[in-house]
Amino acid sequence: MKALIFDGKIRIEKNLPIPRRKPFEALIRVLKAGICQTDLEIIKGYLHFQGILGHEFVGIIEESQNQELLGKRVVGEINLACGKCIYCQKKMPSHCNARSVLGIKDKNGCFAEYITLPIENIHVIPDSISDDEAIFVEPLAAALQILTQVHIRPQDDVVILGDGRLGQLCAQVMSLTGAQVLTVGNHLKKLKILKKRGIKTCRFDEISQKKSDVVIECTGSPAGFNAALNLVHPRGTIVLKSTYEVKPSIDLAPIVIDEITIIGSRCGPFPPAIRLLENKIIDVLSLISQRFSLDNALVAIKAAHQKENLKIILDISK
Amino acid sequence: MKALIFDGKIRIEKNLPIPRRKPFEALIRVLKAGICQTDLEIIKGYLHFQGILGHEFVGIIEESQNQELLGKRVVGEINLACGKCIYCQKKMPSHCNARSVLGIKDKNGCFAEYITLPIENIHVIPDSISDDEAIFVEPLAAALQILTQVHIRPQDDVVILGDGRLGQLCAQVMSLTGAQVLTVGNHLKKLKILKKRGIKTCRFDEISQKKSDVVIECTGSPAGFNAALNLVHPRGTIVLKSTYEVKPSIDLAPIVIDEITIIGSRCGPFPPAIRLLENKIIDVLSLISQRFSLDNALVAIKAAHQKENLKIILDISK
Repeated sequence: MKALIFDGKIRIEKNLPIPRRKPFEALIRVLKAGICQTDLEIIKGYLHFQGILGHEFVGIIEESQNQELLGKRVVGEINLACGKCIYCQKKMPSHCNARSVLGIKDKNGCFAEYITLPIENIHVIPDSISDDEAIFVEPLAAALQILTQVHIRPQDDVVILGDGRLGQLCAQVMSLTGAQVLTVGNHLKKLKILKKRGIKTCRFDEISQKKSDVVIECTGSPAGFNAALNLVHPRGTIVLKSTYEVKPSIDLAPIVIDEITIIGSRCGPFPPAIRLLENKIIDVLSLISQRFSLDNALVAIKAAHQKENLKIILDISK
Repeated sequence: MKALIFDGKIRIEKNLPIPRRKPFEALIRVLKAGICQTDLEIIKGYLHFQGILGHEFVGIIEESQNQELLGKRVVGEINLACGKCIYCQKKMPSHCNARSVLGIKDKNGCFAEYITLPIENIHVIPDSISDDEAIFVEPLAAALQILTQVHIRPQDDVVILGDGRLGQLCAQVMSLTGAQVLTVGNHLKKLKILKKRGIKTCRFDEISQKKSDVVIECTGSPAGFNAALNLVHPRGTIVLKSTYEVKPSIDLAPIVIDEITIIGSRCGPFPPAIRLLENKIIDVLSLISQRFSLDNALVAIKAAHQKENLKIILDISK
């Protein structure tokens, strides 16, 4: 099969064997996949992953012990848990001590014609969700994770720092709470997408001194943290969604003096993401910038690096 | 009156005028005061405060519009709020935009024979609490602030980093929750005080790899933050109590990946601190290392800097 591989360099391999599923796994033929900031960070060396990249996908089950799944269109949770460690026992499989992560840690990803995933990771996608929309279940779940961690109240002021792929989804999710949402970005084209949905936007150089109850850091840049600290009310909350290799120098005193809460946020729940897409409450189609075949995956990665682009889709089955 | 002043250098002034109270304030004759780590940080330049140092005290009301307070033995909350700003309206006077802070910001402190404080800041101390114990109401309230911010459950594992003045009080407060408490320090004499109360202790070089639900950072050292990150469970909580000038370089990725919550914690509620001292549930007397007169305040400050000492008391009325 064909796949996009990273082993210090990225390249397309054309004659890889189709992966063999373990008894508890399904074999999935990938239809489409999405390129995420994490993929780009891995190419820079983040997490030291080597293998097939990619963790956002929609596909068809080709083989599975569970006969009912055969031929079904599915998406999949990306953390493969051991089921035995203290975090699995506490029902925190995404924090499993021995986890592998699709296309991120010890598990080949979905920029390939076929992948395997444990059956317990798989969610069937209803017909009313298109393939394009289904690709967004994973990043939308990551945006929804914020609501599993922080109680956003309808009267809150929420600022999203960053107008990129994740910032866009976070802004849409936050606006569902009724909170006053402001997204700060540097790209007029991206901010326009949010404006069309009635979400307030401004550029970084237009930020006022007004403080907010919650600031969600999605810039993917170390400068985002100190910007968030300046924008949050005493006793407010900063949610960190970005990961990167750089270790910024941070003044901890304001965190103590202003009694700020900082909370890291990663993968989220798939079922609510599927429901919101099914009910057309979240719009993801306007976030698609370009599409490429797997043969053109290197060009696709370049396109994903370009600041003016949002989601780049790989049409793997074409 | 006599007072210990910091204006870039610390020195004792002997002929200062007794402060004049505003109509809403009381004039308090200070009986005793305690030296806190914040006083030592201010002497290093932290917060750029200049004036009379000190914010932990017990005293006698000498003048007040409220006649019932005259002659009463009192302690006082240290944040002087404007009563008008959004934080005062939200009942967060300790975060008042225009606040002054006793001996810390724009308000002369209690290492002096007399101070003034707004009547609303004052709490009368019951007879069953000694002068020595009353000095600890302010730092004990700061330790209790953790319980107003974080739900510590009886089944939790809690680690306190630091065996100093604040670490000792945090350890005692945390052990009241029924949680398994471990205090990590470098001073056998200080750890012994906790051991006597049945609180587990170890040295920093004896820390195991075992993770905890909550880590409370009281080391007063930038290294404490990264130590806390290594010790906390995924989805666990780090409470920051220490403030200092240094800005450590921090790897934010583990905060996101492990979905850690970090919460800054400062001043706390006085009434529960008074109740716990009244009911002899918290022992503070074993934390007193040495006593000095105000005339010997410079020696007292030196003693407070010595790592083997815990609370240094200034007997101001002597």
